[in-house]
Amino acid sequence: MRSYAELVVHNIGVLATCAGGVKRGRDMLDAGLVEGAAVAVSGGRILAAGPEEEVKGAVRTDGRTKFIDAEGCLVTPGLVDCHTHLLHAGSREKELTWKLEGKSYLEILAAGGGILSTVRETRRAGDEMLLEQTKKRLARALAHGTTTVEIKSGYGLSVEEELRALRLVRRLQREQPVELVPTFLGAHAVPEEYKNEPDRYVDLVCDEMIPRVAREKLALFNDVFCEEGVFTVDQSRRILQAGLAHGLRPKIHADEMAGSGGAELAAEVGAVSADHLLHVSPRGIRALAAAGTVAVLLPGTAYYLASGHYAPARALIEAGVPVAVASDANPGSCPTEALQSLFNTACLYLRLRPAEVLNAMTVNGAAALGLAGWLGSIEPGKQADLVIWDAPNLDYPAYHFGVNLVRQVIKAGQIIGRGEECVC
Amino acid sequence: MRSYAELVVHNIGVLATCAGGVKRGRDMLDAGLVEGAAVAVSGGRILAAGPEEEVKGAVRTDGRTKFIDAEGCLVTPGLVDCHTHLLHAGSREKELTWKLEGKSYLEILAAGGGILSTVRETRRAGDEMLLEQTKKRLARALAHGTTTVEIKSGYGLSVEEELRALRLVRRLQREQPVELVPTFLGAHAVPEEYKNEPDRYVDLVCDEMIPRVAREKLALFNDVFCEEGVFTVDQSRRILQAGLAHGLRPKIHADEMAGSGGAELAAEVGAVSADHLLHVSPRGIRALAAAGTVAVLLPGTAYYLASGHYAPARALIEAGVPVAVASDANPGSCPTEALQSLFNTACLYLRLRPAEVLNAMTVNGAAALGLAGWLGSIEPGKQADLVIWDAPNLDYPAYHFGVNLVRQVIKAGQIIGRGEECVC
Ligand SMILES: [Zn+2]
Ligand SMILES: [Zn+2]
Repeated sequence: MRSYAELVVHNIGVLATCAGGVKRGRDMLDAGLVEGAAVAVSGGRILAAGPEEEVKGAVRTDGRTKFIDAEGCLVTPGLVDCHTHLLHAGSREKELTWKLEGKSYLEILAAGGGILSTVRETRRAGDEMLLEQTKKRLARALAHGTTTVEIKSGYGLSVEEELRALRLVRRLQREQPVELVPTFLGAHAVPEEYKNEPDRYVDLVCDEMIPRVAREKLALFNDVFCEEGVFTVDQSRRILQAGLAHGLRPKIHADEMAGSGGAELAAEVGAVSADHLLHVSPRGIRALAAAGTVAVLLPGTAYYLASGHYAPARALIEAGVPVAVASDANPGSCPTEALQSLFNTACLYLRLRPAEVLNAMTVNGAAALGLAGWLGSIEPGKQADLVIWDAPNLDYPAYHFGVNLVRQVIKAGQIIGRGEECVC
Repeated sequence: MRSYAELVVHNIGVLATCAGGVKRGRDMLDAGLVEGAAVAVSGGRILAAGPEEEVKGAVRTDGRTKFIDAEGCLVTPGLVDCHTHLLHAGSREKELTWKLEGKSYLEILAAGGGILSTVRETRRAGDEMLLEQTKKRLARALAHGTTTVEIKSGYGLSVEEELRALRLVRRLQREQPVELVPTFLGAHAVPEEYKNEPDRYVDLVCDEMIPRVAREKLALFNDVFCEEGVFTVDQSRRILQAGLAHGLRPKIHADEMAGSGGAELAAEVGAVSADHLLHVSPRGIRALAAAGTVAVLLPGTAYYLASGHYAPARALIEAGVPVAVASDANPGSCPTEALQSLFNTACLYLRLRPAEVLNAMTVNGAAALGLAGWLGSIEPGKQADLVIWDAPNLDYPAYHFGVNLVRQVIKAGQIIGRGEECVC
C-alpha cells in the first residue's frame, strides 16, 4: 500500500538530490539533478523524490496533506555547515581596523584582541546571554538555508567552561530547530593560565576534559588546532588518541597557516575530517585519500584573511579526497553565519563547479559529521531537510552573490516561515 | 518657532552623518560620528540631527509624530549606488561554469554568452518584463540599505532601444521608492550590426542618440566604456564631447582591464566620475585629483573577476581624489544588487577603513551623481534617507559579512517595511 504523505513539494524546476552517499572525484560533479520533480515527506522524513508524476503515483495524499508549489524553482537538501564556532560571546569588529592599520597578531593580542579576548568574554557571559546570542546566529544560518550546524567548544579552555559550552549546545538543540552536532575543541588555544606550560594544558585536556566530555556524552568528535604556535603535531596526536580511547572520533584543524603535517596526522589517527588545508602537502593529500578522511575547506576564512591563498581544492578532488565546504563561522577570522554566502566564493576561488559546491555543502558535509546516512541528501528515509531557492537552476546560487536566495526552508518536514524568521 | 517633526528616530547608539560635503584625503576618515543621537524628519527632509537632547529641544512633536526607537544601533545615510546596469533582461549564470572550465572570452561569445547575449535578450524583452525584473532587483537593493541607484542604459545599442531603456528608468522612478539616476551608455559595446565598422556606431551615438537623449531629458550623464577592444580613447573623447555639447555630463569606464589613458581623458573632459580604475596610471591619478573627478571603485567586479587585482584605493585617497564605491551590478561581471555586501570587500581588498567605505558609499557616491547637495548625508535640509543597522558601531557592517544587517530603511521620510519588502 502506498504511504501517506503529510507534505508534498511539487512543481520543482530542478531538484538536486545529492543522493548516493559521500562523493569523491568525478562523482562530485553529480548532484543528482531531476527536472520537473516533486518530493513527498512523512514523519519528518523523505518518502519519495524524483519526477513529479512518479512521486505523485507513489504516495497517498488527502485534504490534510500540505502542498508547497515550488513554482519552477531549484530545490536542494538543506545545507550542512560542518565546521563552526558559533557558540561564543561578543564580536571582534575592532580588530578589522587594527589589521588594516598593519598591526601584527601579537600587537592585536597586546591590544586586548585575538582569540583569548573571546575566551575572556565567553567565560564572563551568563548562560542566558550565550544562548540568546547563539540562537540569533542559528536563526540567521537557517534563514540562509543551513539546516545542520556543527558547533565546537573551545572558548572556555577550562574543565568547567568547556563542559558548560557543550551542555549549552545540548540545550540549544531543544530550543531551536537547526540540527546541532557538538564537537569538543578544548585544544583550540593554550589559555592565559597555561601560557608558560602548554604541555600541562595538554595534560588537562587529555586527562580531565576528554574523560568528562565522553562520560557525559557531550560530544561525538574531538578536535584540535594543530598549527605552528598553537599545538604541535605531537601534542595533537596525544590529544586525538586520548579522545579515541574514550570513543571520541578525531577531527583536526590542519595546515592552515603553514604545512605542519596536520593532514598526515589526520590520516594516521583515522580522523573523520581534516579542516582548512591551505598548505597541505602532496603527501598529506595522498594520505587523506587513502584514509577516506573528508577535507573540509573553509573559503570564507581564506577570503577574510585576504592573503590570496586558498586550499588546493582541485588537487584534493583529483586525488579522490571527499571535499566538504563549511563556514568556519567565528568572531575572529570568519564573521558570517551564512554558508550560502560562500557558494560563489567556493566557485571563484576554490575553482569548484556549482554541483561540486552543492555536494560539498550537503552530503559531504554530512559525511564530515558521520551523518551521511541520516541527512544531507534527498532520498527516501533521509531526514526531510529541504531548501527552495529563488533560483531557476543549480548554477544560479553559485552566480548571484551578496543576497539571500532562499525562498523557504523545510527542516525535518517542518516548514520554517521565511517572513518572521527573516533576520538575514 | 521650532519646526514640527513628523518622524523622530531616537536612541541611536552611533549616528554617522557623513556631513560636510564630498570627502577626500584624510577627511574620508571622518564619517561625522555622534553617540547617543537622534534624527528628526519633516516633509521627507532632515530637520535636525545630532545629540538626542539637542534634537529633541530643537523640534516640536505631538501625538501624530512617529517615533522609531533605534535601540542603540548604528544609523547612517541610505547607501548611494552610483554605478549599476540594473535594467536588463535575464541572467548569465551559465558563463560561470564556462569560465571555470577555462573558456576564453571569445569562446564564451561564440557559445552565445557575453554582453551581446544580454543585448539580444533585453531587445527581445517586452517593457513589462523588463520593469518587473528590474523592480525585483531594486527591491533587493533597497532591502540591503540602498536608497539611490544610478542606472545606465547600454543593453539596447540602437537609437530606439537606448531611448526605450531610459524611458523605462523614468517610469520605474514613478513605480517604486528607490531614487533613480539615469545615465546614457550607448557606448557600452559595439553591437553585432556594426562590428565591422565601429566608427559608424560612434557616429550613431554622437549624431543620433545623444541629441535625442538630451532633447527628451532622459539622462543627466553620458558614459562610455573606454577599454582596449571596446572604445578607444579617441572614440571615447568624441562621444563625451558630443554629450557635453548637448549638456550631458561625462562619466567614463576607465582603465579596467588595462591602463589605456581613460583616467587622463576623464580629467581632460571634466568628467564627474571615472569608474573601475584597476590599472590607472600615476599620471591618471594626479589628473583626477586636479580635475576633482570622483574615482568610483567597483570591488565586487574585481572580486568576481578573481584576478587578485583591485583598484589602488589608497593611492587615490593619498593623492586627494574623492573615492566612491559602487556595485557595478550587472549580469556578466558583478551579479549582485547589494552594495552592502561589498562593505567588507572594500575594507579587506581596497584597504579602506570602515569610515572611508561609508563615505564612499554615501556622500561621495552622491557626488559622483552630482547630488551631494541633495542627499547622501544626514544634515538639515537633505533628503531623509536613513538606514538603521543591526550593528552597534560603524566597524560592525565592515566586519560581519554574508548577511543583510539592515533593520529598517527610511526613504525620503517614508518607512520602508522590512518584513514585507524582505526579498534579500
Ligand atoms: Zn575552526
Ligand atoms: Zn559598468
